[in-house]
Amino acid sequence: MFVPVVLGIDPGVSRCGYGVVGAEGSALSARACGVIRTPPGDPLPDRLAALQVELEGLLTEFRPVAVAVERVFFQTNVRTAMSVGQASGLALAAAARAGIPVCQYTPNEVKQAVAGYGAADKAQVQAMVARLLHLSEVPKPPDAADALALAICHLSAGRFRAAAGQKLSDGGAGGGSGFTSSAPLPGLARAIAAATARGTGKKERS
Amino acid sequence: MFVPVVLGIDPGVSRCGYGVVGAEGSALSARACGVIRTPPGDPLPDRLAALQVELEGLLTEFRPVAVAVERVFFQTNVRTAMSVGQASGLALAAAARAGIPVCQYTPNEVKQAVAGYGAADKAQVQAMVARLLHLSEVPKPPDAADALALAICHLSAGRFRAAAGQKLSDGGAGGGSGFTSSAPLPGLARAIAAATARGTGKKERS
Repeated sequence: MFVPVVLGIDPGVSRCGYGVVGAEGSALSARACGVIRTPPGDPLPDRLAALQVELEGLLTEFRPVAVAVERVFFQTNVRTAMSVGQASGLALAAAARAGIPVCQYTPNEVKQAVAGYGAADKAQVQAMVARLLHLSEVPKPPDAADALALAICHLSAGRFRAAAGQKLSDGGAGGGSGFTSSAPLPGLARAIAAATARGTGKKERS
Repeated sequence: MFVPVVLGIDPGVSRCGYGVVGAEGSALSARACGVIRTPPGDPLPDRLAALQVELEGLLTEFRPVAVAVERVFFQTNVRTAMSVGQASGLALAAAARAGIPVCQYTPNEVKQAVAGYGAADKAQVQAMVARLLHLSEVPKPPDAADALALAICHLSAGRFRAAAGQKLSDGGAGGGSGFTSSAPLPGLARAIAAATARGTGKKERS
């Protein structure tokens, strides 16, 4: 059975988090997550080139139906903004060149989608990521958990279903899969609400 | 005769300036310049992908021995910094992946190198670009002139010669070309000083 996956990217040059989430109906699962690091001592162009190669590798390996990249508006300084911009530019361009739909989400949108409210703190979001993905502990490092949260955010946003429907119809595969509406995944909002109601710190019962 | 060229890039998503400068001894010449524009109405990922394709095309077409990209530290806002970061990241990564040495220069370094002092205004720098490249008028649009200035800056910085020497020895071509030292191009500093002394607004006599 074809299980569509979404790739989340938390962009950065020194540390770029990625997370791959599969959606079988409304059941989510973590397929992979981690952090791409580039050596701080290397020249910046070489680091960016290495990052780009790794990002392209993720697209080739997991063939996501969509990519979700963190959109950062506010940074403590312009230097950080430049660096995040460089990494996010590579991610956005790589997805577009591979013909994969790509969306950006602000940290607040991710918190809202995953934890149910935009003012949630990092620990709450990470605990929710573990719960929604039926993981026994919070994924580490934090960049990887943040990337998984981005993928979950995209799945909950409903754009995924539109994108997946487009991909399936483009490829001529599997009619009647249900991936044709732009509504959120059925049950996911309910799962998020239920998991939120159970409070932070408890594990998902599965 | 092999005339090495340097590609200057003034990065931006809406408008990305490029300029190709050839150096035959100390005589500089403009080989090409222009602006890559991406439609503001298109999705950002598509615009970045299109920009990346164009940048790769410039590297393939002109095979520069080095690339010079503007380094921007200060921006009026973080949104602009993100956008410049995205474009510069694509330029830096494209050059590194093509195996071409790439350097970044701040606007002040460019002004210092081309006009002789870091506080020069845009019009003075552009007039100097026209003079040094023996052009009858200032290249338009300004992004293209800025990109040519970046290439001239790199040529005057001397790193070019080291890079060109490396490329020549890597490729096994043309020993004894003199591209082995890291000193600035002979005569270029003198040419800049002489052109500066003639003042703004006069054309280069050729």
